[in-house]
Amino acid sequence: MKNISELRQDIVFGDWVVIATGRGRRPHDFAKKDGDHWWKRQKKNCPFDELIDSAFYVALKSGEVHKLSKKNKTVLEKNWFLQIIPNKYPAFGKGICAVQRKIGPYFWEDGVGFHDVIITRAHEKSVALMSQKEADILIRAYRDRYLQLKDEDCVEYVSIFHNHGPEAGASIAHPHSQVIAISVVPPDVGRSIKGSAVFYHKNKKCVHCVMIDFEKREKIRIIYENEKFVVFAPFASRTAFEVRVFPKKHSPNFESIHNSEITFLADALKMALAKLCKGLGNPSYNFFIHTSPAANIEALRHYHWHIEILPKTAIWAGFELGTGIDISSIAPEKAASFLRKIKN
Amino acid sequence: MKNISELRQDIVFGDWVVIATGRGRRPHDFAKKDGDHWWKRQKKNCPFDELIDSAFYVALKSGEVHKLSKKNKTVLEKNWFLQIIPNKYPAFGKGICAVQRKIGPYFWEDGVGFHDVIITRAHEKSVALMSQKEADILIRAYRDRYLQLKDEDCVEYVSIFHNHGPEAGASIAHPHSQVIAISVVPPDVGRSIKGSAVFYHKNKKCVHCVMIDFEKREKIRIIYENEKFVVFAPFASRTAFEVRVFPKKHSPNFESIHNSEITFLADALKMALAKLCKGLGNPSYNFFIHTSPAANIEALRHYHWHIEILPKTAIWAGFELGTGIDISSIAPEKAASFLRKIKN
Repeated sequence: MKNISELRQDIVFGDWVVIATGRGRRPHDFAKKDGDHWWKRQKKNCPFDELIDSAFYVALKSGEVHKLSKKNKTVLEKNWFLQIIPNKYPAFGKGICAVQRKIGPYFWEDGVGFHDVIITRAHEKSVALMSQKEADILIRAYRDRYLQLKDEDCVEYVSIFHNHGPEAGASIAHPHSQVIAISVVPPDVGRSIKGSAVFYHKNKKCVHCVMIDFEKREKIRIIYENEKFVVFAPFASRTAFEVRVFPKKHSPNFESIHNSEITFLADALKMALAKLCKGLGNPSYNFFIHTSPAANIEALRHYHWHIEILPKTAIWAGFELGTGIDISSIAPEKAASFLRKIKN
Repeated sequence: MKNISELRQDIVFGDWVVIATGRGRRPHDFAKKDGDHWWKRQKKNCPFDELIDSAFYVALKSGEVHKLSKKNKTVLEKNWFLQIIPNKYPAFGKGICAVQRKIGPYFWEDGVGFHDVIITRAHEKSVALMSQKEADILIRAYRDRYLQLKDEDCVEYVSIFHNHGPEAGASIAHPHSQVIAISVVPPDVGRSIKGSAVFYHKNKKCVHCVMIDFEKREKIRIIYENEKFVVFAPFASRTAFEVRVFPKKHSPNFESIHNSEITFLADALKMALAKLCKGLGNPSYNFFIHTSPAANIEALRHYHWHIEILPKTAIWAGFELGTGIDISSIAPEKAASFLRKIKN
């Protein structure tokens, strides 16, 4: 008898997900019908089409990096490819960090940190459509900004993420990523690090390295790989068509990536997103980097940084919100087989 | 200097949320413009307008409960107010429970359990609009079905939830709740129970009772209360306008609720939802019951069951998904003050 679903456990987190294969959905059922049109909507007067005065990091098409000034403004306006600006509506700002206050039984502290926006120039060119060189410049900007922020006094964690499409919460259609640096280690990252530490102490191995080795042998969940990175659908996928990008070599810290490795990461990320874009009709998605906290690097050598891509193939509803158990209505093996075959 | 945001800690979970008050949004900014229209869309040929053959629990307008049979079909078809049916597309079904299987480093088990749908008759009458008597019958159905499921062999947890509106994942507009009974304790419930146990052992008090006492003294987050239930906006709200409904008397188990208490719960839930509906233009929302697991009741006397209502006032995007930190862009004190004043 075929089961309606499987409960699968995330071996890092310990949490369960449901793979509801019994619903019999095929990969094409997830494709968006109107996916190509949404970002053309905001083309007129797009605030991100121009170089913005507050840009403090400007990369040219050549890859050369500058700080915007009166002197170089005209040249940069012509040749900019990428700019980093402070978010106009930041979620975090100045304040006194790491001072816990108490009201009755509750605790709170100032929301201290940084909130930047990384904008690439072409309005309709998502990461999936970028050239190798362009994706390289984007990843370098991620790393460069990470390195600037990680030693700031109040910064415990730097989160780099990208929202693509309206269902993924992108309020501006123009391609942009965000960097948020905050004064606490986020709960999900904390649990992930704790889980990998427990595994390491028990098995003397990195849990992610074990997963990568197993996936490379099994092959059924692999979507793409190059010399230095591997892309696969996780066994305990949180959403249909979830995709993860891992460096093959063990490394706890994203920011220690070399330029030579960035080229391979850019290739792997582009490939993963291009396959999703082509296969599912340009779906909305979020991706983010999970890496070690900015502090205590020595203690966290068991962690293995990576990128998680979560297409918005469904809405988190009452069951998911009330239990913390996500339901994915396609098996990751089927999703991987579908995405693997899509040519770029 | 006014801060951009506050990090607030959930004292049960330990997780942080961000209250991004600096964005200066007012309560009316969250109101839906087209909220009233979505559920009129699916009025024609709605599958939930009729009594369904698989109904195994039918409550009449009088509150009387029947099981559908050939004999009573005609009478029930005329007088039914509420029916419970097995979900046509269940997330869980038959199988072998609690047998953990291993593939390489991973663990999985059959997705064993029950998945029901609780349907109330009137297509356009959401819980907010129900009469006191109707809401009573709905809550009784929740309890009755809970009591049937909790002693089933494979059931460790029973999740009762309700999705209202398209943004909350309600694929059918007709008002309906769902009951899912599963063979594992969900991660979020597990963490919540663990957090309340830690607090109990340290303080010899129920953490939720402490919160309720404090909220009743402070008053600023209280939205509504009657003799037996209190409705307030949690200090560490996960979303803008999050609302929780607590029994004032300490009780770990929802299913031990008496009929006399159900009347007060129905009143409190109706009030909370009616205020959201009127104040925010019938927004989409999810609500769910958090209660002790079906097993090990004796060991969990420190837990305090309650209902959480999460309006879909924003989309969980890359930051929330990558960190587990939710951002709410209105202070719960402001949300409560707004909702408190709305008359039903």
